[in-house]
Amino acid sequence: MTLIDEERTRRTLDRLASQEIELPSWAFGNSGTRFRVFGQPGVPRDPFEKVADAAQVHAHTGLAPAVALHIPWDLVDDFGKLRAHAEDHGVRIGTINSNTFQDEAYKLGSLSHSDTAVRRKAIEHHLECIDVMRATGSQDLKIWLADGTNYAGQDDMRARQDRLAESLAEIYAALDAEHRLVLEYKFFEPAFYHTDVPDWGTSYAQVSALGERAVVCLDTGHHAPGTNIEFIVMQLLRLGKLGSFDFNSRNYADDDLIVGAADPFQLFRIMYEVVRGGGLDPASGVVFMLDQCHNIERKIPGQIRSVLNVQEMTARALLVDTDALRAAQAAGDVLGAHEVFMDAFYTDVRPLLADWRESRGLPADPLAAYAASGYQETVDAERVGGTQAGWGA
Amino acid sequence: MTLIDEERTRRTLDRLASQEIELPSWAFGNSGTRFRVFGQPGVPRDPFEKVADAAQVHAHTGLAPAVALHIPWDLVDDFGKLRAHAEDHGVRIGTINSNTFQDEAYKLGSLSHSDTAVRRKAIEHHLECIDVMRATGSQDLKIWLADGTNYAGQDDMRARQDRLAESLAEIYAALDAEHRLVLEYKFFEPAFYHTDVPDWGTSYAQVSALGERAVVCLDTGHHAPGTNIEFIVMQLLRLGKLGSFDFNSRNYADDDLIVGAADPFQLFRIMYEVVRGGGLDPASGVVFMLDQCHNIERKIPGQIRSVLNVQEMTARALLVDTDALRAAQAAGDVLGAHEVFMDAFYTDVRPLLADWRESRGLPADPLAAYAASGYQETVDAERVGGTQAGWGA
Amino acid sequence: MTLIDEERTRRTLDRLASQEIELPSWAFGNSGTRFRVFGQPGVPRDPFEKVADAAQVHAHTGLAPAVALHIPWDLVDDFGKLRAHAEDHGVRIGTINSNTFQDEAYKLGSLSHSDTAVRRKAIEHHLECIDVMRATGSQDLKIWLADGTNYAGQDDMRARQDRLAESLAEIYAALDAEHRLVLEYKFFEPAFYHTDVPDWGTSYAQVSALGERAVVCLDTGHHAPGTNIEFIVMQLLRLGKLGSFDFNSRNYADDDLIVGAADPFQLFRIMYEVVRGGGLDPASGVVFMLDQCHNIERKIPGQIRSVLNVQEMTARALLVDTDALRAAQAAGDVLGAHEVFMDAFYTDVRPLLADWRESRGLPADPLAAYAASGYQETVDAERVGGTQAGWGA
Amino acid sequence: MTLIDEERTRRTLDRLASQEIELPSWAFGNSGTRFRVFGQPGVPRDPFEKVADAAQVHAHTGLAPAVALHIPWDLVDDFGKLRAHAEDHGVRIGTINSNTFQDEAYKLGSLSHSDTAVRRKAIEHHLECIDVMRATGSQDLKIWLADGTNYAGQDDMRARQDRLAESLAEIYAALDAEHRLVLEYKFFEPAFYHTDVPDWGTSYAQVSALGERAVVCLDTGHHAPGTNIEFIVMQLLRLGKLGSFDFNSRNYADDDLIVGAADPFQLFRIMYEVVRGGGLDPASGVVFMLDQCHNIERKIPGQIRSVLNVQEMTARALLVDTDALRAAQAAGDVLGAHEVFMDAFYTDVRPLLADWRESRGLPADPLAAYAASGYQETVDAERVGGTQAGWGA
Repeated sequence: MTLIDEERTRRTLDRLASQEIELPSWAFGNSGTRFRVFGQPGVPRDPFEKVADAAQVHAHTGLAPAVALHIPWDLVDDFGKLRAHAEDHGVRIGTINSNTFQDEAYKLGSLSHSDTAVRRKAIEHHLECIDVMRATGSQDLKIWLADGTNYAGQDDMRARQDRLAESLAEIYAALDAEHRLVLEYKFFEPAFYHTDVPDWGTSYAQVSALGERAVVCLDTGHHAPGTNIEFIVMQLLRLGKLGSFDFNSRNYADDDLIVGAADPFQLFRIMYEVVRGGGLDPASGVVFMLDQCHNIERKIPGQIRSVLNVQEMTARALLVDTDALRAAQAAGDVLGAHEVFMDAFYTDVRPLLADWRESRGLPADPLAAYAASGYQETVDAERVGGTQAGWGA
Repeated sequence: MTLIDEERTRRTLDRLASQEIELPSWAFGNSGTRFRVFGQPGVPRDPFEKVADAAQVHAHTGLAPAVALHIPWDLVDDFGKLRAHAEDHGVRIGTINSNTFQDEAYKLGSLSHSDTAVRRKAIEHHLECIDVMRATGSQDLKIWLADGTNYAGQDDMRARQDRLAESLAEIYAALDAEHRLVLEYKFFEPAFYHTDVPDWGTSYAQVSALGERAVVCLDTGHHAPGTNIEFIVMQLLRLGKLGSFDFNSRNYADDDLIVGAADPFQLFRIMYEVVRGGGLDPASGVVFMLDQCHNIERKIPGQIRSVLNVQEMTARALLVDTDALRAAQAAGDVLGAHEVFMDAFYTDVRPLLADWRESRGLPADPLAAYAASGYQETVDAERVGGTQAGWGA
Repeated sequence: MTLIDEERTRRTLDRLASQEIELPSWAFGNSGTRFRVFGQPGVPRDPFEKVADAAQVHAHTGLAPAVALHIPWDLVDDFGKLRAHAEDHGVRIGTINSNTFQDEAYKLGSLSHSDTAVRRKAIEHHLECIDVMRATGSQDLKIWLADGTNYAGQDDMRARQDRLAESLAEIYAALDAEHRLVLEYKFFEPAFYHTDVPDWGTSYAQVSALGERAVVCLDTGHHAPGTNIEFIVMQLLRLGKLGSFDFNSRNYADDDLIVGAADPFQLFRIMYEVVRGGGLDPASGVVFMLDQCHNIERKIPGQIRSVLNVQEMTARALLVDTDALRAAQAAGDVLGAHEVFMDAFYTDVRPLLADWRESRGLPADPLAAYAASGYQETVDAERVGGTQAGWGA
Repeated sequence: MTLIDEERTRRTLDRLASQEIELPSWAFGNSGTRFRVFGQPGVPRDPFEKVADAAQVHAHTGLAPAVALHIPWDLVDDFGKLRAHAEDHGVRIGTINSNTFQDEAYKLGSLSHSDTAVRRKAIEHHLECIDVMRATGSQDLKIWLADGTNYAGQDDMRARQDRLAESLAEIYAALDAEHRLVLEYKFFEPAFYHTDVPDWGTSYAQVSALGERAVVCLDTGHHAPGTNIEFIVMQLLRLGKLGSFDFNSRNYADDDLIVGAADPFQLFRIMYEVVRGGGLDPASGVVFMLDQCHNIERKIPGQIRSVLNVQEMTARALLVDTDALRAAQAAGDVLGAHEVFMDAFYTDVRPLLADWRESRGLPADPLAAYAASGYQETVDAERVGGTQAGWGA
């Protein structure tokens, strides 16, 4: 409670001022489970409308100046126009995400498929994504690979790993000098026996073989039960290979819930390791992205809640009394060190952040401000006809 | 190895002769993950074609004389005609499964919803299902409830539980004297914070409040990681409340893989407890059903493999030398008892069952026989046009 | 933040005033893992010293007026004397915990053992515990059963369950009218294949067969990964069978860490369901106990931290704006309801509770007050010689 | 079933002939859980008796010519004498395992401890272990590090990782040219918040920084629930960093049960990847060790059962019809490939192996032969007095 003194507050707000969180375009489209995708009124029908919605999140929070695209869902004829559209709305295009899981050809794999023709197709798709990056000014090509098998013996895991390495090498070679390749790992789904990039170790081994500009994406929902995720954050920062986060939260599998909703303390611990490892420094290159599905809640408010959750936990992480913490740790004072750590977590930073927002011309309560803005009612009324965006477009 | 002596073999085959496994109509339609549903050639376009496919499984194995329906996916104008169609194909209609997860109204719940109108709608749906049971001669109304919430605080779990109890009571009261209500539990999905019937304890408490003809359905893929499922089988049989199985297998979540594919030894242990607890006796009322998704493999062969897996493991369970087992257990001989148990598991029963099948006019190798039958090629060629069945129909 | 208004605060503090948390005597003795038990200076050598330490926790927090005993670890010649000793120190003797896992005879089981003589021995042990209850004025006989097996086939799970039922019935029959039997469940450990009371369903089925005064103990560390524990709290309260809590926290298995340390939000959700279900009402009979191991941290401060964690989370649970919550839930406002819920969790109640403690003659900062009291230094110096208490005594 | 043809059998037996499994000396001493260590008659009192017991396993199976030691549990005055004693009994001394978890100084860590003096002590311990290696002719220094923390904030994970790297570098530098450093990872226990080497990725990153002769130890019980272990086996073999196995099996945590007892199919899949990746070739350097606890079963028979399980599963893995498998995989025949794989698993290799054993002068039934040998009765009678070996000695 005494943590909010003048000096510590000033330092915390200084650090927060440069925090940027990237929004996924697909969070504004419909999503669901294999059982049902429930639609919502006002859902965008194209990438331009998605960007407009994302800009609302930024307008009310000042936190989300970039929008990640997913190809082919966000394919447009003229990416220059989409880029300009984004800039007109006060945001920019961020990470380009490839898709290797929806084409008929990818039923049994893509970059790791045994058929050269399928691998070629998947590689070409990534080369197109690189073209999109050039048109949008994006820095990162993110690859989440759905490749895997459902049954033991179905395919040769070792050969798949080698083929994946070859495919990635070709893609990496096609990147421009300012581009990065970001390889995401995932414990399981949609494959249920083995996944070709199932853990950070595999992603790390693969990107290390590629080169300096190949890094790892850590999706907070992509781990085995009980995994200490902040440890992995620490390790990847230590190894210089933490490229980006996909933030969301989970209770069971890859639930893709609002970040911080399932286990707020975990988010705090993660942000503490980010701060500790220098990941908040823009020079570190760590990109903070959301990757969530608002299956039953409204989407723009869901994204606003999410970026606020990240900001609030970052604030708490920055408030940790590191001098006291180091002293207790050095003394082997188990309870004392834990108390210093918890002190920051239990500090209610919301009033402080509300004041600060107002001082910067932002609403004290972004969710209330958005609700009062009438934007939702407008798009609910206007976006009639056409096909709502979802995971297919 | 010495387990296959004449007397034990005879007893085993006698018990196997009465084994029946029920097939889900939806296993023959397309299925997938939230990321993609891959179609297959030859997939049925209506319930009649599904029943015809299911009949193929029975024709080649002699194991699968019943087909479970899912309402509304399997709604037809004339269920008497579907019933006759099934009988013409040598099978019958089995369990009727309700659907409370796809209607727009059920977005936040069905039988447990706070809105009386939604609950009424969900109850009425079950009354229609009971009408279908009357038309098809089905005994069991199976309820798998997708109800739950995604966020803590989203709804009042206690009130939902009470409302569920009321809804179930009304449905139970509408059943005919020969009908049963079977309540399935599931750890999670599609809800990611809480599920209204998440565990066997909840299902047991709810059906116990209803009456004698309300029982529990155990889906082998619906448990927390590490759960000892055969213990639950034992307990439900002991309490007289094991109504039916939904067989499948899993490595991670509700993967719905082929039963026995992920952990054959677990299937053996489950079948051993079934035998031990009298569940193989038709009088026990235990129904053995499959509930699987053949996302990437061919569907009819997938179902053939599945019923064979159940039969082979049942054979192994029946081969356990129970005298030796009891003696070792009574002596506290930990390793000895375990060895007796494993002896049965490691026995290769496949040649025995192949011979036995032939002696009953069935193919020694059902998968090869099906492949040679030309059925697949025929339906692949004939079933052109129309809409392939899936989880929406 | 606006949650701490005058009226809500008054009501919250009123409810908190009657909260009692029971301490386990064994938390003050040495504990550890199978790899090593690290000793600490000042650890009690006998039950009298344990009670004295427990009284320190109560003296500094006003929260812990009862001490649970474990038999035989806490066997004394004269329980009347121990009871008086407790009263002299301002506390009382609480739950009596039996031990069925350390005697040589119990290697393969106790109340469920196949050998009548072993079961007899285990039953007699419980009858002795009931005698202790009479001498100490305890209400609850708590049974945590370590019974289980390590290998499939090792013993007959069904027969064990039936024998357990018989053993429990005999123990239940021996209780006095004001006594309760509390049956604890545990997912695993020390048995690694099956446990005879592994889940709440089994405990519920067993105690329901006994009678009204047989209830369930929920240890927060005894569940499968991912289990929604507050759902079970809700369900047991609904069924009238929640007898007591064993509070602790875990990241992996039965880690027995300080309650609230691993997942504070989970503790909040649990306490919310306790409040929601009436479990905070003394008439509900729900007993709040700690069951923890301070393997590496100091024990008395560890217990002080623990009872404060429970109190702080109870305060937050009581602060939930239930009118707003109900309104949002009834409106199907997913995000709105979640926000109301989180508002209470993120409220920093520590200043409020510190003030309130002072107003009641208790230290604002119990940990600092304990540290300043000199008690630890005194016992560290005085308790030299003798055998430190641990899990063997 | 047709898998056991002449040619395939010959090749399989040829490969099996060179298989060696290393036994841990501590498997012959008493072990248990934190709740209780149950003793057994005939348990060794010193390393010489442990080696004698291990030699019994080899004598009856021909599979276990090496015995791993644990320092300081197996410290003797004259390791040359112990080495000669082993050779007299037909076995040799294998891996040397260090211990960094039982000394009072290691309460909060060893090689990663913040106190230079503690790290120095831990490093010196490893230098002593290297001396033992020289005296015993051992090749591998295995380090399982218990280091970790119980509470978030307790210590700085990043600094610990850096200190660990420094400590390992010093130990690695002290090895002789023919020595290897093998770093084991473990998900959790005895630390319950974070572990300093929790996963293969961390072990891989650490040993990669050391050099060619630093490799990873994979203990089959040290993973998060649901982890695909054979994938890690594949990956480590691919990366040239799989140093050794610690075989055991688990249902819940690090249960240390008999390998293959909990999930035989998993062991098959692991051995298949070993074969696939060349790990069975002695030139690969992969060491196959057991690391188990026979808490309730007899120890020598427990070890015999274990090495037979490994051999039987290796035989099944070698029997896989790799031509048919590759063809089905290349054809994208999901079910077909899986069937080929399962065919080998379901083949009962026990009669074949029994015959082969006899042909090599070994008993057809090693467990029966051991039971008939009278060895157990002899040691039960002779080993009276002294202190039975356990995890403290």
